Amino acid sequence: MGGAVATTAIAGIEMIKSGANRFDGLPLADVAVPGLSHYRDLVFGGWDLNGEDLGSAAQEHGVLSRDELNDGASALKSMRPWAAVGNERFCRNIQGRHLIAAKSHREAVEIIAADLARFRKESDAERVVMLNLASTEVWPDLSLPVLATVEAFERGLDENDPAIGPAMLYAYAAITSGVPYANFTPSVAADVPALIELAKRRNVGVAGKDGKTGQTFMKTVIAPALRARSLHVDGWFSTNILGNRDGLALDDPASLQSKLNTKGCVLEQILGYPVEDHLVDIRYYRPRGDDKEAWDNIDITGFLGKRMQIKVNFLCKDSILAAPLAIEIARVMGLADRRGEGGVQEQLGVFFKAPMVANGHPPEHAFHVQEQMLADWLNKH
Amino acid sequence: MGGAVATTAIAGIEMIKSGANRFDGLPLADVAVPGLSHYRDLVFGGWDLNGEDLGSAAQEHGVLSRDELNDGASALKSMRPWAAVGNERFCRNIQGRHLIAAKSHREAVEIIAADLARFRKESDAERVVMLNLASTEVWPDLSLPVLATVEAFERGLDENDPAIGPAMLYAYAAITSGVPYANFTPSVAADVPALIELAKRRNVGVAGKDGKTGQTFMKTVIAPALRARSLHVDGWFSTNILGNRDGLALDDPASLQSKLNTKGCVLEQILGYPVEDHLVDIRYYRPRGDDKEAWDNIDITGFLGKRMQIKVNFLCKDSILAAPLAIEIARVMGLADRRGEGGVQEQLGVFFKAPMVANGHPPEHAFHVQEQMLADWLNKH
Amino acid sequence: MGGAVATTAIAGIEMIKSGANRFDGLPLADVAVPGLSHYRDLVFGGWDLNGEDLGSAAQEHGVLSRDELNDGASALKSMRPWAAVGNERFCRNIQGRHLIAAKSHREAVEIIAADLARFRKESDAERVVMLNLASTEVWPDLSLPVLATVEAFERGLDENDPAIGPAMLYAYAAITSGVPYANFTPSVAADVPALIELAKRRNVGVAGKDGKTGQTFMKTVIAPALRARSLHVDGWFSTNILGNRDGLALDDPASLQSKLNTKGCVLEQILGYPVEDHLVDIRYYRPRGDDKEAWDNIDITGFLGKRMQIKVNFLCKDSILAAPLAIEIARVMGLADRRGEGGVQEQLGVFFKAPMVANGHPPEHAFHVQEQMLADWLNKH
Amino acid sequence: MGGAVATTAIAGIEMIKSGANRFDGLPLADVAVPGLSHYRDLVFGGWDLNGEDLGSAAQEHGVLSRDELNDGASALKSMRPWAAVGNERFCRNIQGRHLIAAKSHREAVEIIAADLARFRKESDAERVVMLNLASTEVWPDLSLPVLATVEAFERGLDENDPAIGPAMLYAYAAITSGVPYANFTPSVAADVPALIELAKRRNVGVAGKDGKTGQTFMKTVIAPALRARSLHVDGWFSTNILGNRDGLALDDPASLQSKLNTKGCVLEQILGYPVEDHLVDIRYYRPRGDDKEAWDNIDITGFLGKRMQIKVNFLCKDSILAAPLAIEIARVMGLADRRGEGGVQEQLGVFFKAPMVANGHPPEHAFHVQEQMLADWLNKH
Repeated sequence: MGGAVATTAIAGIEMIKSGANRFDGLPLADVAVPGLSHYRDLVFGGWDLNGEDLGSAAQEHGVLSRDELNDGASALKSMRPWAAVGNERFCRNIQGRHLIAAKSHREAVEIIAADLARFRKESDAERVVMLNLASTEVWPDLSLPVLATVEAFERGLDENDPAIGPAMLYAYAAITSGVPYANFTPSVAADVPALIELAKRRNVGVAGKDGKTGQTFMKTVIAPALRARSLHVDGWFSTNILGNRDGLALDDPASLQSKLNTKGCVLEQILGYPVEDHLVDIRYYRPRGDDKEAWDNIDITGFLGKRMQIKVNFLCKDSILAAPLAIEIARVMGLADRRGEGGVQEQLGVFFKAPMVANGHPPEHAFHVQEQMLADWLNKH
Repeated sequence: MGGAVATTAIAGIEMIKSGANRFDGLPLADVAVPGLSHYRDLVFGGWDLNGEDLGSAAQEHGVLSRDELNDGASALKSMRPWAAVGNERFCRNIQGRHLIAAKSHREAVEIIAADLARFRKESDAERVVMLNLASTEVWPDLSLPVLATVEAFERGLDENDPAIGPAMLYAYAAITSGVPYANFTPSVAADVPALIELAKRRNVGVAGKDGKTGQTFMKTVIAPALRARSLHVDGWFSTNILGNRDGLALDDPASLQSKLNTKGCVLEQILGYPVEDHLVDIRYYRPRGDDKEAWDNIDITGFLGKRMQIKVNFLCKDSILAAPLAIEIARVMGLADRRGEGGVQEQLGVFFKAPMVANGHPPEHAFHVQEQMLADWLNKH
Repeated sequence: MGGAVATTAIAGIEMIKSGANRFDGLPLADVAVPGLSHYRDLVFGGWDLNGEDLGSAAQEHGVLSRDELNDGASALKSMRPWAAVGNERFCRNIQGRHLIAAKSHREAVEIIAADLARFRKESDAERVVMLNLASTEVWPDLSLPVLATVEAFERGLDENDPAIGPAMLYAYAAITSGVPYANFTPSVAADVPALIELAKRRNVGVAGKDGKTGQTFMKTVIAPALRARSLHVDGWFSTNILGNRDGLALDDPASLQSKLNTKGCVLEQILGYPVEDHLVDIRYYRPRGDDKEAWDNIDITGFLGKRMQIKVNFLCKDSILAAPLAIEIARVMGLADRRGEGGVQEQLGVFFKAPMVANGHPPEHAFHVQEQMLADWLNKH
Repeated sequence: MGGAVATTAIAGIEMIKSGANRFDGLPLADVAVPGLSHYRDLVFGGWDLNGEDLGSAAQEHGVLSRDELNDGASALKSMRPWAAVGNERFCRNIQGRHLIAAKSHREAVEIIAADLARFRKESDAERVVMLNLASTEVWPDLSLPVLATVEAFERGLDENDPAIGPAMLYAYAAITSGVPYANFTPSVAADVPALIELAKRRNVGVAGKDGKTGQTFMKTVIAPALRARSLHVDGWFSTNILGNRDGLALDDPASLQSKLNTKGCVLEQILGYPVEDHLVDIRYYRPRGDDKEAWDNIDITGFLGKRMQIKVNFLCKDSILAAPLAIEIARVMGLADRRGEGGVQEQLGVFFKAPMVANGHPPEHAFHVQEQMLADWLNKH
């Protein structure tokens, strides 16, 4: 919880509590639905590989100003993360020392579950939701049998199967604790068949994955309109430069692949045909810090086969776009929990680059359709 | 009908008839609705201030290649426009010699109506639709009583009132001939209260105005998504460079104002608040010819009041984007006519920068909502 | 001296004195030439239509942070401008109350000269230089006889000729006080024939005009290279958005024309042929504050007549680019004065959009040539 | 000689001969120096892995229109390349069937030399120059002793040392035939110590390497100006998309590395300090064909440590920029030969991304300095 997105989200809520922040950038700020938590009722706990207090962590990320951290968000200074489960094999460029001393998968799960139980008790929160905001892990081999069924997965836990990564251990601990789990990262977690099935059996909500913030957000906004105008996409070149810890993690080719996996699939579903020249680059570029820049070039063919180009240059702040989505995901997960709706929460697709789906049908990526799906779900009762 | 959009649209249809063109860029190519004309059944007639054949006109515009004009679109060489009603006061930078020798408003209307009647007879078309694809006229004083009611307007015709411009004469002739009228230009035509009322009384369709092609299209795609994400628009700077005859017409400040009027209003309706720093520039820049380039800079504020920027650079071909919309408007107007639906055709909003509305309520500008409105209308029977 | 450029320049020097600033962005920081003042030896005085202290003025401009103004640049709080000569006719969008109560041109000149004499005495500076950093004035009629000769100009002073604007009064007062005068704005000042001649007669240095900061800087860097590669410039479209007081002043079409006059002429001299489609737009756009953005599109023709495009998007900070140039101009003017060189200082062309020239020959605009001219002059002794 | 650059260059010269082309894009068109060949006196011969005539090859490249190839450049149809030395190990993505049947390095060299001798005789040209316009080869291990001295290299030829690639064989054959050799590609050829020494001993001109066309051209134009203004470069991100055969060759990581090696080093020399975040990406992106697009983002720090950004988007045609440089290199190499100047031709640096230098000093990269070097050399006699 000491990452840039988590600290920004927590700071934003604390600033709302202290009157220093308004509701800019919170997509559901105007939604009034019974059972949806108020922003000021949210409380936070979590793990991090780095043990420093959130105020210090936030200062390093450089997203909030010193003034903001001293005034409205001063509460962060007294928040400390719990020791985390880390695994160097899964995220090579990010290391830390604030680790759970677990000797086995089972022991790790027990410690996580104990943390959750303690937090539930101490915070006196009505309900608890777990959000994965950790660094991106490497992409596992999804064809392994251990990830295919609940039973195989649980045997894998017993046997410390190396295919089970940290994100999966957290997701498993959450689901078995009755805590809804959402994955804001590209890591593979609750989206393996074993855990989807488990969530369904236990009627615990799961959702993911990979917050749809900058470039993919714009892509899923523009592509449906190109389709509506019958403008054929010949190629879509996307490049990103970013300099925060997320960028550093993605500087490891194995983690980068996880990211590219979640970014790559949106166009075909929206357009109805494959775009062979769909390229996505992500580069770690330090002058930007948490600021992130995306440049897209879209080659299109219109009437009479004539060719045109659209270029989109998005100068954005990664955590500023991500934090409000994380908050809204938590609130909607809480509402689903209250409504007794477990399993995959498809209504959250608008917030994710690679939305999880319940029944194997392809996910919807068009932004305005996803937006309508969420609005319908919110209003359905 | 000798302008760049008209000749491109006609060439595209003739190339479909001759097998040289597919349906790229035609938004309703996949729609199968009873009563909607097939592309290959469309036939064309029209006026122009310039009397040359459409093949020669198209060659000057430089949108189609010499090969295309000689092969698939060779039919244009044998098409000649009818002499037009022109008025130098209303469009100062474009002049021509192929003029109707009308001494009064009434005589002009009669000649236009006679042209329509002759075309209907000679073409043997099942139904006729009039599309305004002429150069942009200057913006009239909309508060004049002569434009307010049918009766005042008709008195104005009798008295050759100078407030009644050429586009209004065409629209009046169309409506009184029972010919649906759509306005693809920013000129004021059927959208004065007098003619809206007349269209309603006669149950003749009218629609407009100003084809939504490049920059405004993108604006109405992106703005709804910014609203959905609660990203506040602090300013939106739009500049355009274009070098075709449309650009030359807009080089006259009075005509430019007409264009800016139709481009300016979309943001407030979509976002729900006024954007004080919404600037739109259009510059005549000859190196581009019919190619048109738009550059937009959008300043947005997100979570915690942090500021970000989006820049969109659209290198487009004006007529290539416009021609298919003109074609689809004609087809939908024809279908509405067949369905017996007169008055303002609100379902066509997706094709216009400044959609006409029937009952004074504000027009919908969000692209995906407009798209749904048209789909609903098409599928409603 | 309370404008954004002046306060930024003064703050920068004060921060160098206090050790809080290094020499980033100072073009001549590495130049060691005998007689060139050290940055830390500079002291400041000046006029402003607004009487508040420079610390408060700088805070409003928003170029420096609160921390910088409280720490390294805290000296600004105790600096107050002298009352200014203003004239609403010459700069309509900027008004102030801190005015010299002069009833005639001659009285105004006397007060300015007295201010200079007092400053020279109180500051104990070795030599004094006057820099025009005021808002842009409207463009006068340069063909008026009153501006043509020293004698006519001085008669004009006696008769309060309205063609003589405030900037000219300041320039006249400087020259007749033996104070070198440089014009960092697009206003017409020492560059009328009368004052050029006067500066020559008195052997007092004059230079100008209009600091070459963002877009024109890049233009004069890129254009020479296009010429060197024989890439023909078919058109160059330049647009600017800026939101500071400079932008507000330029929102008056008359002042804007002054700016466009100084920006417009560079291409033809560099390329050796006129660029017919050279367009320059400047728009006042508040979301940017002192940040300024330029977008250029360059259409070029290369080998075999094939066409290509270059687009340059410069996100710059106006005062941050301008202030160091103002400082270097002052230092070089001081050095020329020490060297006994009066009249037009052509060696300063690298810092100006419209360099003044001594003998009527066309000014050099190519950046690297100008750079060499300055280096040669600096090293010539 | 059937590649896009070669066929474009030859077509351009043939079109000059036939009167269909002017001198657009030829940097030295206005230079009148005794001994510099006229464009219309150039004649061509060369090798290619593909045996088809140049007219057919050019048609595939899509740089010239069908009309141009049928009219002014019709001479290409009767030009056929000679069979080439190819080596799959050195350029994996480009293969061909029009190969020299050489069983050894020595035999390959002999055949190349025989081709040169035959061409010299048949063409009756006054002097012959060899230009490498082939696809980029993989980067060899430059530390191998075989590349270090003439003697070791010649032993390597005898022993068919695999470190000696095709480009080196051509360069060796040229030098030993007394034919000046210039390398327009990033491949390692005459720039190994052995061949530089050989060229010096034989007094035969060599030059290279990698034509400076689009992005690097702009980089070496802009970077010197940033230095002159003391604007510190914090990072420079460059990305390229291109879809021609050159792009396909670079899609092989080993060849790409050769390109990146020649693009990477320019900034440090110009700026005087290393730019740690200087990233260069090149992606094969088919919608562009021979059109190439570069997008650069430059992060700079100015006065008071304030940060700004410059973005440059260059939509260029690779071969259109490259062909005239290839022609001028050939003319200048010819002139140097006439002047009796062998060894490394440093005066050609303005045309190369990685200029070869004679004595181990670092190469000059600043565009305007290189331009002056060439002008000085041309005018020195």
